[in-house]
Amino acid sequence: MPAAILDGAAYAAEIRTEVTRQVAWFNAHHGTIKLCAVLVGSDAGGRLYAESQRKLSVQVGVQYELVELPEATTQTELLAAIDRLNADARVTGIILQLPLPPHIDPATAQYGIDPYKDVEGVSPANIGWLFYDNPIIVPCTALAVAELIGRSGVVVRGAHAVVVGQSRVVGRPITMALLTQMATVTGCHAATQDLAAYTRRADILVVAIGQPRAIGVDHVRPGAVVIDVGINRVVEHDAQDQEVRRTVGDVDFGSVAQIARAITPVPGGVGPLTVAMLLRNTAEAARKQLQRRV
Amino acid sequence: MPAAILDGAAYAAEIRTEVTRQVAWFNAHHGTIKLCAVLVGSDAGGRLYAESQRKLSVQVGVQYELVELPEATTQTELLAAIDRLNADARVTGIILQLPLPPHIDPATAQYGIDPYKDVEGVSPANIGWLFYDNPIIVPCTALAVAELIGRSGVVVRGAHAVVVGQSRVVGRPITMALLTQMATVTGCHAATQDLAAYTRRADILVVAIGQPRAIGVDHVRPGAVVIDVGINRVVEHDAQDQEVRRTVGDVDFGSVAQIARAITPVPGGVGPLTVAMLLRNTAEAARKQLQRRV
Repeated sequence: MPAAILDGAAYAAEIRTEVTRQVAWFNAHHGTIKLCAVLVGSDAGGRLYAESQRKLSVQVGVQYELVELPEATTQTELLAAIDRLNADARVTGIILQLPLPPHIDPATAQYGIDPYKDVEGVSPANIGWLFYDNPIIVPCTALAVAELIGRSGVVVRGAHAVVVGQSRVVGRPITMALLTQMATVTGCHAATQDLAAYTRRADILVVAIGQPRAIGVDHVRPGAVVIDVGINRVVEHDAQDQEVRRTVGDVDFGSVAQIARAITPVPGGVGPLTVAMLLRNTAEAARKQLQRRV
Repeated sequence: MPAAILDGAAYAAEIRTEVTRQVAWFNAHHGTIKLCAVLVGSDAGGRLYAESQRKLSVQVGVQYELVELPEATTQTELLAAIDRLNADARVTGIILQLPLPPHIDPATAQYGIDPYKDVEGVSPANIGWLFYDNPIIVPCTALAVAELIGRSGVVVRGAHAVVVGQSRVVGRPITMALLTQMATVTGCHAATQDLAAYTRRADILVVAIGQPRAIGVDHVRPGAVVIDVGINRVVEHDAQDQEVRRTVGDVDFGSVAQIARAITPVPGGVGPLTVAMLLRNTAEAARKQLQRRV
């Protein structure tokens, strides 16, 4: 029986509806929710991405401001700019657009963001709180993955989850989030030997390696829940030898969907849900700022 | 061939010698290294533990002060007391003794410690920096475990490490530290089903569950490196039916030592090395405060 398709785009729409309600309530009772994105250097891709963030933010009632700083901004100057946003009570959320210029350490800059305003949940402080089962703001991708696993109906507690890819802001937070949910979790990465021997044992398989269709049917146990975090643009040739541009995941969807219990498509899976989780975090951050614990 | 015994007590002595040199250098060039331990409530065990810390600190040339606060101290008052120590340039290291009274959240209190003075490496901020491969101060137990694994001669990169027990300050930081060293890591805990099926696959097996001799020869792959973090006091009866008090680990040392490649004894393994790592962190913290990045 082919897999259930975990429709991230549809779940994202549900979450945006819920967030719109939350934002309206907050705006009515506590002033405006305002998200500031900081972009260092005039990166065209970064500005395009910011425009898409602005559109999505405004849709749910969140004010959005792009703060552009010159490429030559020093780390100290960036931290000072972030501190001004931290201190500004009208700003309830801060995003630092990546990549930063090479002379700035991303984690140090992210650590400068007030953990209550860090709506992406990527500051080392927020990552550490996740470790302690007491998160302020959880990384958006980890939230999206957890939501998709939940929607698959699999019981996480006691399941064996295998997370392939251990990047700092995606694979590792997902690994930790699954551990805090009491899955037995195996973290795999580029140095793992005989990857398929691990992935074939997974009840829940999460892949975040950025390699188009690298995980095939030989890597997956029949009946597993497969969450594909990868978003890869590929150019392929069709039967008429025409170039076709496609967006594909890290998982070979066509074959794996034949044996999995549930699977996320790419596009339309983890991607849109991650964006929706950023908006949910933005509403959550504003609400939590009313009752700070640190 | 029986296992090599990883002599934590001997390695700890080496590290104390090295730390004594570092502290003498620092004291000569940059003023005194001073460690403040904060004890909330008049717990006899806590004071006894502090006395042992004082003795070990003084041995390596570190000044030690115990700051005792009444049981009724509120979380806000504790955070204010910690802030005074953060601001005091003469204090280079801060330890918060656990357990705290139930009205205080340990992670929130630890988060109040300047990450550069958090010599135990347990603040959420420091845990998060570990995640980002850029730690300021690493949790002492994770350092001790990493040192013992290193001394066993096993190659961590690409090895399969299984960490049994996922507590916030021991199992999880060890799991993350091994992932950053590019081991394939499986985290197991109370909800893991068929534990032995996981542990028998481990090249490196780390056990931190606090259950006397729970891991036996059936759990261990011949040739594995076994690190026993458990310290359990048990009362047993000898052949003459006399009560005997013993300190034993989470691993059944007698049988597992027959098949492992290397194993830590209890006592004399992870325990003394963890204390030595606290002293090393204390020297490191003082040194790093000379060149802060945040």
